[in-house]
Amino acid sequence: MPAATLVIHGGAGTLLRSAMTSEIEHLYTEALHSILKQGATLLSGGASALDAVTLAVSLLEDCPLFNAGKGSVYTRAGTHEMDAAIMDGESLRAGAIAGVSHLRNPIQAARLVMQHSEHVLLCGAGAESFAASHGAQLEAPQYFHTETRYQQWQRATQQSGTHLDHDTANLLEKHASDAPIDPDKKFGTVGAVALDSAGNLAAATSTGGMSNKLPGRIGDSPIIGAGCYADNRTAAMSATGTGEAFMRSLALYDIAAQMRYLQRSLAEASAHCIMDILPRYGGRGGIIGIDRAGNIALPFNTEGMYRGVVRIHESPVVAIYANQ
Amino acid sequence: MPAATLVIHGGAGTLLRSAMTSEIEHLYTEALHSILKQGATLLSGGASALDAVTLAVSLLEDCPLFNAGKGSVYTRAGTHEMDAAIMDGESLRAGAIAGVSHLRNPIQAARLVMQHSEHVLLCGAGAESFAASHGAQLEAPQYFHTETRYQQWQRATQQSGTHLDHDTANLLEKHASDAPIDPDKKFGTVGAVALDSAGNLAAATSTGGMSNKLPGRIGDSPIIGAGCYADNRTAAMSATGTGEAFMRSLALYDIAAQMRYLQRSLAEASAHCIMDILPRYGGRGGIIGIDRAGNIALPFNTEGMYRGVVRIHESPVVAIYANQ
Repeated sequence: MPAATLVIHGGAGTLLRSAMTSEIEHLYTEALHSILKQGATLLSGGASALDAVTLAVSLLEDCPLFNAGKGSVYTRAGTHEMDAAIMDGESLRAGAIAGVSHLRNPIQAARLVMQHSEHVLLCGAGAESFAASHGAQLEAPQYFHTETRYQQWQRATQQSGTHLDHDTANLLEKHASDAPIDPDKKFGTVGAVALDSAGNLAAATSTGGMSNKLPGRIGDSPIIGAGCYADNRTAAMSATGTGEAFMRSLALYDIAAQMRYLQRSLAEASAHCIMDILPRYGGRGGIIGIDRAGNIALPFNTEGMYRGVVRIHESPVVAIYANQ
Repeated sequence: MPAATLVIHGGAGTLLRSAMTSEIEHLYTEALHSILKQGATLLSGGASALDAVTLAVSLLEDCPLFNAGKGSVYTRAGTHEMDAAIMDGESLRAGAIAGVSHLRNPIQAARLVMQHSEHVLLCGAGAESFAASHGAQLEAPQYFHTETRYQQWQRATQQSGTHLDHDTANLLEKHASDAPIDPDKKFGTVGAVALDSAGNLAAATSTGGMSNKLPGRIGDSPIIGAGCYADNRTAAMSATGTGEAFMRSLALYDIAAQMRYLQRSLAEASAHCIMDILPRYGGRGGIIGIDRAGNIALPFNTEGMYRGVVRIHESPVVAIYANQ
């Protein structure tokens, strides 16, 4: 029986080597380390993979360093719109929410949809009132304000596009907590996958979307098979990157299909997806995955991906760049 | 070179044999027949598969007999929330909209998203303002009012659930234009798939959702790989049925994966999906599909599915029940 294992990511993207300082790097690695340790404690007590990914993604949402929950970016309208999804690899049940603005932990709302509705995906005000009626914690818009994200948005609105990629050294000078992986490059998503001691898999993904995006845009994060997928027969996976490419290629379900129909390993199938298939759709990003034997894969085709792995009774391992 | 071909559906569901009259049957078959003929005329003039499915689904949306566009059902809040998706099998580009209430032809808005945005899926007010800014026709809520759907909703609100399955003979007596396939059984979706004279495939799906559903619920129709999918290498497909089962099983993308990875035919793969896989997710419904050789498949595991096929220079063939 493989050891219970938790894998997390905090987004992938264009690495700004000039902007990275050891202080900033330390902030990110410490956050990932701490979340992995809390998840491992839960798993070592016999908790389910579903509980472990819910906890890990909730903690990532609560951390303002990452683009989900508390650290969510601003839309073009100056609002926050968050998406999240969760899937249980044993029952193949799934729940997701999209375009919510007042839920402290979108991933917990997604889990409520999975467990307390006949639906898979709820969006907007309907999703919020459903989640609130089942005890989800609401927050006023100010809760989601962070100075770093606000400044990003302000700069973006002075441009015409959705993102920008200049002025980054200056940006880091002014906002020491900002990201060495370019936060304006719309790769901000968090996720977790886990294998528990009963041999079950689960996956969870959450995002604050793209900075300065059109209101109403739904990316891959809340779409089952695109940004989040789990099946005990194949793997649990969470994606981060150019969402539309993951949606059009059904990236995560395609990996599962390669595993089931072509007997490919998780490593082979996920590398093929990220390195060969996704670029044909103009896609950049990465995934984290784990199979039932405890094999993990963390392929990405960007310069960096915030990521970490912990097996219970072992120390967490955290990395940001490629070849780490 | 196979003849350009158009396949359409107007939903699948529980057949109410007691409620069917030849007059009602005639209304449905005439509507399907007329839409197929208009689509065939377009295709025989050399139009693209994309144009053919856009026209066919627009006409299905304009016809109050079907649950999409003008004939959309009411949500629990007494509103209309429509979803639609379109995909081009040549470029693998896709566009979709969800939760819109004022767009006369949601499928045309989905196509605008595909062709004029960097996104795949827009929802709610953001989707409407994007579509309107690109010329989509808006309608006041009254446009979507039909007496039949309003009465369905009124009856549903007197129950606690989302749907009901009684009182159907009486219902048909009062509303002669009502559906012999139980409209309260939430299988109301329309769709079209086509092969054009250049050998390209396209798929389109549109729905008014489930009667008396929770506001904010998004089903499979606007989800690429669940309710709509097209790839020249495999097939163009549109689904109708219990949306959540199609979403959790990635039904249409799974059929494409079976075709690519297991060398199964469209007929084999789609029958396996509808008859074997979908029921394991509690799913009922059907799909229409066409491959590049012009082979079509129309499997469904319900008592009926409104459907029709036309190959250019041939007469349309229309059916409602199984074994027709």
